[in-house]
Amino acid sequence: MADSDSGEGLSIQDLQQHIHRMYYDKDVARGVDGTFMWLMEEVGELASALRGDDRENLKEEFADVIAWLFTIANVADVNLADALAAKYGNGCPGCGKFECTCSLDEKP
Amino acid sequence: MADSDSGEGLSIQDLQQHIHRMYYDKDVARGVDGTFMWLMEEVGELASALRGDDRENLKEEFADVIAWLFTIANVADVNLADALAAKYGNGCPGCGKFECTCSLDEKP
Repeated sequence: MADSDSGEGLSIQDLQQHIHRMYYDKDVARGVDGTFMWLMEEVGELASALRGDDRENLKEEFADVIAWLFTIANVADVNLADALAAKYGNGCPGCGKFECTCSLDEKP
Repeated sequence: MADSDSGEGLSIQDLQQHIHRMYYDKDVARGVDGTFMWLMEEVGELASALRGDDRENLKEEFADVIAWLFTIANVADVNLADALAAKYGNGCPGCGKFECTCSLDEKP
């Protein structure tokens, strides 16, 4: 990934390939279930960080959760950029608007 | 987001702005905790999809979890592209390599 001081220009596809290069062999060896356990651990750490006031830690925890999600997607052979474009590329999946008008009570 | 048939070229930054436009007002009204509950519901659906064999549903569930993560990052005012570049831009945070050599037993 070029220019690692800033994420500007970082694409979903590049990130997924970067994570693939870093972790794919280990992830396949561990398997989907074991990898999902790590994701859950990081999600818990994110919950904790959201309650705290350490901004640097919060940024790291977001990055970790996203990295684990991408790593599971690699094991599952899902192209996340395409999946995101398909589901959200044309506005909210619920109401179809680019500024969602779904009720707060509905599942968005 | 341009060219919503394919995610090629979709940047982390663009996606976060797109999610912001769609959902920010609702997310702030709901609050971090309520929004996190929705994230957890989607994570559960992802776990279920990973056990099944419906590929289209699996892609959607990945997209949903990522969208909810991004939406929480907006409420928390965290720039995800920068957070990812900072944590993972120079290789594995654990071993520093672009092909991770951490032991399978360690926290990666």
